[in-house]
Amino acid sequence: MIASIKKIALVGGTHGGELTGIFLIKKFKQYPHLIQRYGFESIAFISNEKAVEVGTRYIDIDLNRAFNCQDLKNPQLINYEQSLAKKIAQRIQQEKIDLVIDLHSTTSNMGLTVILHGDNPDLLKMAGYLTQTNSKVRILQHELNKQSSYLISSAELGVTIEVGAVANGVLDAKLFQETENLVYAILDYLEADKKGQPLPVPPSFTYYSAIGTVDYPRNEQGKIQAMIHPQLQFQDYQPLNPGNPIFITFDGEEIFYQGDETVYPVFINEAAYYEKGTAMCLTKAVRN
Amino acid sequence: MIASIKKIALVGGTHGGELTGIFLIKKFKQYPHLIQRYGFESIAFISNEKAVEVGTRYIDIDLNRAFNCQDLKNPQLINYEQSLAKKIAQRIQQEKIDLVIDLHSTTSNMGLTVILHGDNPDLLKMAGYLTQTNSKVRILQHELNKQSSYLISSAELGVTIEVGAVANGVLDAKLFQETENLVYAILDYLEADKKGQPLPVPPSFTYYSAIGTVDYPRNEQGKIQAMIHPQLQFQDYQPLNPGNPIFITFDGEEIFYQGDETVYPVFINEAAYYEKGTAMCLTKAVRN
Repeated sequence: MIASIKKIALVGGTHGGELTGIFLIKKFKQYPHLIQRYGFESIAFISNEKAVEVGTRYIDIDLNRAFNCQDLKNPQLINYEQSLAKKIAQRIQQEKIDLVIDLHSTTSNMGLTVILHGDNPDLLKMAGYLTQTNSKVRILQHELNKQSSYLISSAELGVTIEVGAVANGVLDAKLFQETENLVYAILDYLEADKKGQPLPVPPSFTYYSAIGTVDYPRNEQGKIQAMIHPQLQFQDYQPLNPGNPIFITFDGEEIFYQGDETVYPVFINEAAYYEKGTAMCLTKAVRN
Repeated sequence: MIASIKKIALVGGTHGGELTGIFLIKKFKQYPHLIQRYGFESIAFISNEKAVEVGTRYIDIDLNRAFNCQDLKNPQLINYEQSLAKKIAQRIQQEKIDLVIDLHSTTSNMGLTVILHGDNPDLLKMAGYLTQTNSKVRILQHELNKQSSYLISSAELGVTIEVGAVANGVLDAKLFQETENLVYAILDYLEADKKGQPLPVPPSFTYYSAIGTVDYPRNEQGKIQAMIHPQLQFQDYQPLNPGNPIFITFDGEEIFYQGDETVYPVFINEAAYYEKGTAMCLTKAVRN
């Protein structure tokens, strides 16, 4: 699959407040030679210009939940992001983009997370390679969902990059540089493959497979009643064992994890997920 | 001045995304006995309910820049926050609030900062007391400005609390609890004063006096051309010496501090200050 890639799109600003990807894409647009490699073409664009301008995640709805195949065909869905998703999906088809790399940031301590959907062995190998380029690289795998509404689902192949912890509206220079280097590592890996000189993939590596989400404790009106426990804050990808503290109420009462096996939470305390009913995602660690 | 305080207002949600103060005020409204002390009355309210609901800093303009005395009298200023500022200022007058404590959070590493305007010796002593209650307490002093447009300027006495680093839209449990304890320490200090049993103030302590601001390097179109240098990120209240790195461009070129004496930057990389042309505020350390 990777061998057949002819054109790549690097995307940023799918969420308007996530400056790392936005400023990286601006740099790539200004200096397009930075993303050109042997064997395939690369373009870069900001997906939600209006949200970037306003500095908010979105105008009407989350653009990164607007790419469901049925929704894209539905002429009644015409709000700002719904219309925008249709334009972007069309562009990706018309320009014959084979691979989309969508650059995000998060308030969770996700390091440099490479998110894969499904179990494409080529992309998993590539992600394995990336873990060697920076110790902060983690691989998060979701099940392939044909109803996927993410932007990356508009191309045959897609990778979402999530870097953090960083606040929305803030540029963190170190994370900017690390994300830039991660993008170059992806391009270099693909180029080496095109040249028939594949870069070395570790014989074994760990990835984290999503198994579900946990919401904040809420009252009958849906108002949250507890915060992420201080011992869990910023502990993304660390083991959470049955009985470990997970939340703390506004009165200081601790709430403990009730599962029956060790899990590895990610997206802990992501700002944008309060409204989505997600305090964290749970994963299991898989040794490849 | 402190001795004459009869009524206090604890305020949160002056900026809609700053959850620490918002959830603390909600707690105080639900359990008003928590903020009652001997000798004075305390009320708590959310100042910008609409921005809190939407989860943005403001709707039309920054509410915490809308309390300029002339602006409050100007009938032509009628956007959401301009109108709201008039209502809040009127309420503070009508309810005879002597002291406003406005709870904010910041993406900068400000710890538990107590901001004072002017050199009221009573408030400075109180702030000195607070430095003993948590090692993260810092005192930031601005010159008294009669054209002040901050919410606290609508009462005779005002203190702004800025806690961080925390992303907008995120509740950090430890910071929530520390801020809550800081509020109680203020109330306890005032109560002890009322009882004629003043709490001990250290004979000498440091405060940081604001001397100016530094903007990001920008191009002719006003677009930023560099980021806070990684060595300066999260180093609020640490000495910045002439020649130390201060910014780094998107190409990795370092920019150094050109001043001729050591300063102590604060509000380094605050998300909301990109639009205000402020990469950081500079202070000098003053030993009281």
